[in-house]
Amino acid sequence: MGETRVLGDPLKQFAKEIFVRVGMPPEDAETESTVLIWANLRGVDSHGVLLIPWYVENVDKCMMNPKPNIQIMKETPATLLIDADRAFGAVVTMFAMNRVIEKAKEVGVCWAAIRNTTHQGAIGYYALMAAEKGMAGLTFVCNPPNMVPYGAKVPGVHNSPIAISVPAKRHRPLILDMATSVVAAGKIHLALDKGVPIPVGWAIDKDGNPTTDPKEGTALLPFGGPKGSGLALMFECLSSVMVGNPLLEPALLDKEVGPLTQGEKPEVIQVRPGYSSRHIQNSVVVAIDISTFTDVEGYKEHIDNLIDGLKALPKAEGFSEIFVPGEPENRIFDDRSRNGIPLPEGTVRKLRDIAQRFDIRLPLG
Amino acid sequence: MGETRVLGDPLKQFAKEIFVRVGMPPEDAETESTVLIWANLRGVDSHGVLLIPWYVENVDKCMMNPKPNIQIMKETPATLLIDADRAFGAVVTMFAMNRVIEKAKEVGVCWAAIRNTTHQGAIGYYALMAAEKGMAGLTFVCNPPNMVPYGAKVPGVHNSPIAISVPAKRHRPLILDMATSVVAAGKIHLALDKGVPIPVGWAIDKDGNPTTDPKEGTALLPFGGPKGSGLALMFECLSSVMVGNPLLEPALLDKEVGPLTQGEKPEVIQVRPGYSSRHIQNSVVVAIDISTFTDVEGYKEHIDNLIDGLKALPKAEGFSEIFVPGEPENRIFDDRSRNGIPLPEGTVRKLRDIAQRFDIRLPLG
Repeated sequence: MGETRVLGDPLKQFAKEIFVRVGMPPEDAETESTVLIWANLRGVDSHGVLLIPWYVENVDKCMMNPKPNIQIMKETPATLLIDADRAFGAVVTMFAMNRVIEKAKEVGVCWAAIRNTTHQGAIGYYALMAAEKGMAGLTFVCNPPNMVPYGAKVPGVHNSPIAISVPAKRHRPLILDMATSVVAAGKIHLALDKGVPIPVGWAIDKDGNPTTDPKEGTALLPFGGPKGSGLALMFECLSSVMVGNPLLEPALLDKEVGPLTQGEKPEVIQVRPGYSSRHIQNSVVVAIDISTFTDVEGYKEHIDNLIDGLKALPKAEGFSEIFVPGEPENRIFDDRSRNGIPLPEGTVRKLRDIAQRFDIRLPLG
Repeated sequence: MGETRVLGDPLKQFAKEIFVRVGMPPEDAETESTVLIWANLRGVDSHGVLLIPWYVENVDKCMMNPKPNIQIMKETPATLLIDADRAFGAVVTMFAMNRVIEKAKEVGVCWAAIRNTTHQGAIGYYALMAAEKGMAGLTFVCNPPNMVPYGAKVPGVHNSPIAISVPAKRHRPLILDMATSVVAAGKIHLALDKGVPIPVGWAIDKDGNPTTDPKEGTALLPFGGPKGSGLALMFECLSSVMVGNPLLEPALLDKEVGPLTQGEKPEVIQVRPGYSSRHIQNSVVVAIDISTFTDVEGYKEHIDNLIDGLKALPKAEGFSEIFVPGEPENRIFDDRSRNGIPLPEGTVRKLRDIAQRFDIRLPLG
């Protein structure tokens, strides 16, 4: 009771089918559903299939573009500026990461900035793409404000996540994928779904007061105070401002904008702080070719040794194991790949509604 | 009583003179003393002239090399691998940052990895060099373990700092310069000098227990638990392991090494965790040419607006002002540039000893 398990493959087929029905080319629908199911398999359910109804709603409102005209606006041997045309995030980010990997092979490193994309899902996926090619991968993402800068009592920065991945040999690649807030927004949504309180320190309410009510905790708090807050701000400077599409600039945030129509391509799409009815983001993806600097096989062996060494350190009280970045998610991945992805009732209900709308069978008993 | 003020210029001349006496070419001594005094002027005294006696000691032990053979080992259009030959950190890092800035002008971005350097001082300086050329600058640094990975009770990672700087127009450049620990080691040394306790949560003792005694707090704690710990680990993967000089790998850490002689150039210089008698670090410096992506003047104006906007947000309780990264240090810089740098008695005493050894006048009343 309360949750149903479904295998990754049929769930991916279901997601893909929905995306085709809203107008995506099949290969893009494959890309998008791959990233969603990857998140579910790794236990990052906040970035999995529960997003499908929201994505469909964004297509309905012409905010997410199922048939984008993704364009390389500028290119040098080591950089790319890509306009996403409000593409589904996975579609443009996978395109970008494949390009930077190719270019990094030529000149050692490639740094791409993506403008006007939409939700990019679990960004560890893109960093991992580089690691799987024997490179180091780096991604970060900026959105309109949802996090309180250190010293403020209203949102002014986004809890911009960063992901870094490097390859190992015996071990799976390391994948760090973290938000700059104390916790990701998904954890608060989860508490809301479960009807449980949140700890003080995760979020504040609209008046800037601490709250344990997940419904009231609308503004996230930065991790490490000025550190998380500062990192988030600098990511905006390196991504949104760099692509001429600032998302945190207050004067721009106050601009009222109506819903977009399919043909409209505004330069700047903004929302009020803390009231994001609009959904846009900018991002940076980087690949670093390890072979430019050192022997790749030797590199991977050193990463193995580093992992083994860290895991063998004496444990702190209350810890039975030391985890390296990505390891807890890999364990869940193995379990869910065999035994299926557990979907809570609320998610199943929403997916049934979507399935009914498009007259598609939800792959559940 | 208790502290003496000295102007930046004579203090810099003093530092430069010492470095020349230990064998540095005058232009390198100028570079090194510039970065030290910059830290003092900005209030980051842990990275200022109090390091001079330690640097001299490291030269005595042949660990810091005043006449290094800095070499570019590998080069592509967008990358550099630089061997520092145990140079003073500022000497090789300023060399590297100047090179990446030049190369970024050609191909948009340049990523350099530096191996076998020594203490790099306040790394915000190097990121700022890029911002002053209208670029974005990024630096991070890795050393042997001094911080406890999340879940462990002994050091296994370094509290690797990261610095990011971008230019503004009316405002001074933003400079984020932060360690991945809750506080920098310097704050614990300062508490020790002042004879005051440290808060629980800054560091643990050699048995893994929380402590408020700065003498016992030998292992730093990561900020944000697994987040600070994970970032530090990934910085090592992107720098030390990338240059074939791992500093956190336990098997290598346990290797006993004797003091270096001037002619010796070992591939790997290691120390036991928490017992760093040896001093070596690796680093990454990156410059991103803003003009590759967007109009630089427009960029700077957006950063101005972003700064103004953040500072105008409603303040949290207990805050009279919201600071952007680098702003508190800029205020101290203005004060100390006019009124001099306050040196505590302990620092003055150590500098007097050094002055006496080299028969140089310490520029104090």
